[in-house]
Amino acid sequence: MKTIILLGSTGSIGVQTLDVIRAHPEQFRLHALTCGRNIELAAQQIREFKPEFVCVQRKEDEEKLKTMIPGSVKTGYGREGLLEAVEQAEGDTIVNALMGSVGLEPTLRGMKAKKDVALANKETLVTAGHIVTRAAKENNVKLIPIDSEHSAIYQCLEGNSEKEVERLILTASGGSFRDKTRAELEGVTVEDALNHPNWSMGAKITIDSATMMNKGLEVIEARWLFDMPYEMIDVILHKESMIHSMVEYIDGSVLAHLGMPDMKVPIQYALSLPDRLAMPDKKRLNLWEIGTLHFSKPDFERFRCLKIAYEAGRIGGTAPTVLNAANEEAVDAFLNGKIQFLQIETIIEQALESHSVIQNPDLDTIFEVDRMTRRFVQTDMK
Amino acid sequence: MKTIILLGSTGSIGVQTLDVIRAHPEQFRLHALTCGRNIELAAQQIREFKPEFVCVQRKEDEEKLKTMIPGSVKTGYGREGLLEAVEQAEGDTIVNALMGSVGLEPTLRGMKAKKDVALANKETLVTAGHIVTRAAKENNVKLIPIDSEHSAIYQCLEGNSEKEVERLILTASGGSFRDKTRAELEGVTVEDALNHPNWSMGAKITIDSATMMNKGLEVIEARWLFDMPYEMIDVILHKESMIHSMVEYIDGSVLAHLGMPDMKVPIQYALSLPDRLAMPDKKRLNLWEIGTLHFSKPDFERFRCLKIAYEAGRIGGTAPTVLNAANEEAVDAFLNGKIQFLQIETIIEQALESHSVIQNPDLDTIFEVDRMTRRFVQTDMK
Repeated sequence: MKTIILLGSTGSIGVQTLDVIRAHPEQFRLHALTCGRNIELAAQQIREFKPEFVCVQRKEDEEKLKTMIPGSVKTGYGREGLLEAVEQAEGDTIVNALMGSVGLEPTLRGMKAKKDVALANKETLVTAGHIVTRAAKENNVKLIPIDSEHSAIYQCLEGNSEKEVERLILTASGGSFRDKTRAELEGVTVEDALNHPNWSMGAKITIDSATMMNKGLEVIEARWLFDMPYEMIDVILHKESMIHSMVEYIDGSVLAHLGMPDMKVPIQYALSLPDRLAMPDKKRLNLWEIGTLHFSKPDFERFRCLKIAYEAGRIGGTAPTVLNAANEEAVDAFLNGKIQFLQIETIIEQALESHSVIQNPDLDTIFEVDRMTRRFVQTDMK
Repeated sequence: MKTIILLGSTGSIGVQTLDVIRAHPEQFRLHALTCGRNIELAAQQIREFKPEFVCVQRKEDEEKLKTMIPGSVKTGYGREGLLEAVEQAEGDTIVNALMGSVGLEPTLRGMKAKKDVALANKETLVTAGHIVTRAAKENNVKLIPIDSEHSAIYQCLEGNSEKEVERLILTASGGSFRDKTRAELEGVTVEDALNHPNWSMGAKITIDSATMMNKGLEVIEARWLFDMPYEMIDVILHKESMIHSMVEYIDGSVLAHLGMPDMKVPIQYALSLPDRLAMPDKKRLNLWEIGTLHFSKPDFERFRCLKIAYEAGRIGGTAPTVLNAANEEAVDAFLNGKIQFLQIETIIEQALESHSVIQNPDLDTIFEVDRMTRRFVQTDMK
């Protein structure tokens, strides 16, 4: 029986994590959950899963929530509450499905409290990969990826030695605009961009998928998760998203993880590894029904965000923090109709160009660079 | 340093096994080799690899060979010599690349002598899978597959539990005639059949590939190697032969082994496992160059040999021995122009129909059924 601390229970990954826990009551128990402002859903989750500790974003929501749940449940709010959640003595594994840079501190504090961390929070590794991976080593805890690409690589490495890896190959669907030329990208709308062909996800990540910044951030994550240099991380376009990623070995063998697109697979594996558990309602992959899988090389001029991400990753230090913050602000501006689609990449490039990189930054520096970048982008767009 | 006993050194698998040993002098040493009648090539191999024991098929070849190699090399011939080879105290791993039923006894005797056996000899598992797998367990030695499909499955199982397998999926190129209808198969020639699209192999296996009996025999091998019922073994047509086989797990994950078609990969892995060694001249798989992978469901009416093999496997006992012997005789007759391509399957079906299956046969029974089946087929074709 593993006890789970779930950060971000009302988002897409949070809800699916609870689906996994619900399906395996013998294996998993929810000990604590945290959420943002959707306390109606949280109250429902609490009544069903009966966690012992709950944290919400704001004090007023904590008060409201208390009237909706049994009095025996301990509650908290804000940063303090989040840290109380990850330090609960009873938790074995933290599922960090928080959005944005708020996810960083709970990961580090959770590791210090000797808990494994299953990570769906990209920012944690992109901006502070050097700090987080060091903390995992020092505390001898596992850092487990939850998105489909890194979970695929993790699984393809099981039973093998990382010293025998030739390269990691991340697959990319190419997003909503994969068949468009750069000229055609000029006039695309927010609605066009949100129409992802394979995965149903939040708005931010769907736009990141269309720009391929999402893949760029994943390349940086892979660099840290698997301790591989960028030269050993490739991206291949594969529009069906059936191969989730691959590992090429020094003997010419390539191991791949395939499956129907379903986030519950990597979530469940993150909780159950090294074992696998049955998934009763799983969508089975039948390649003979799909018939054809396509592959092509990404064009770095067509997908400039991917190129920019590799560059920021190679520069290292605070460059990925700038990349991530500028991207978040630019995507937000695009979603709010303030800028055109192709301006996203221009804004990120400008932010990177105007930034003086600091190597091996500590957390305070990372947060400060994050803030400064957002201010720069916002000012720039006025 | 692993010491290798190589049975069948002058055939395709034997020669490539020596390529692997040559490439890794720090890891592997050839202790003994056996060959059939190609003693010129054997003499050359002996001068290069300096084994301590050598066995040929016939006494007269042994005498001839002695004049061509250093006097310090011990020699033998025939069945006795073969058994002396596998019982050499110094050998760690036997590579059994013998053709036909002659490979069975050396495998069993080698296991009794506590050696791991890397098996390229299909007949061993098809006809006596129950005996061979029991012997491996009793002697606590490894039985390692050398062909690409089973090596792929073996690798996709590493780091996972066999209890968590949902099904094994063997890929099949479909052979030389995969795009032909049954009507078109009526008049095909030996030359047409020998023109395999992906792999360059011996004549017998190329014909088996065209009839898909090769895949049928592999299904039976998989049943024994991985201890899975036939209901859990599927075959999928995949004409590019880039995915070598797959394992589907209970959580919906599918692990696949990919690579450019190259028998040296499974041979080397069989010798190096659980480690992988570099392959300096390896052909790297670049899916973006290949562009498209195709998959389809095999039509059991179109590929009747595959259906017959599943049936013989399910019946069990001596049925797979009849299947294998009748197929060998029929393919031989086709290669010698005595029968038409589609008569191969008819002959096998007749042999199976006229046979009264004996369950759990011992070796003598297997050999006797093998002989009787060959006689039956030969008489039938007169």
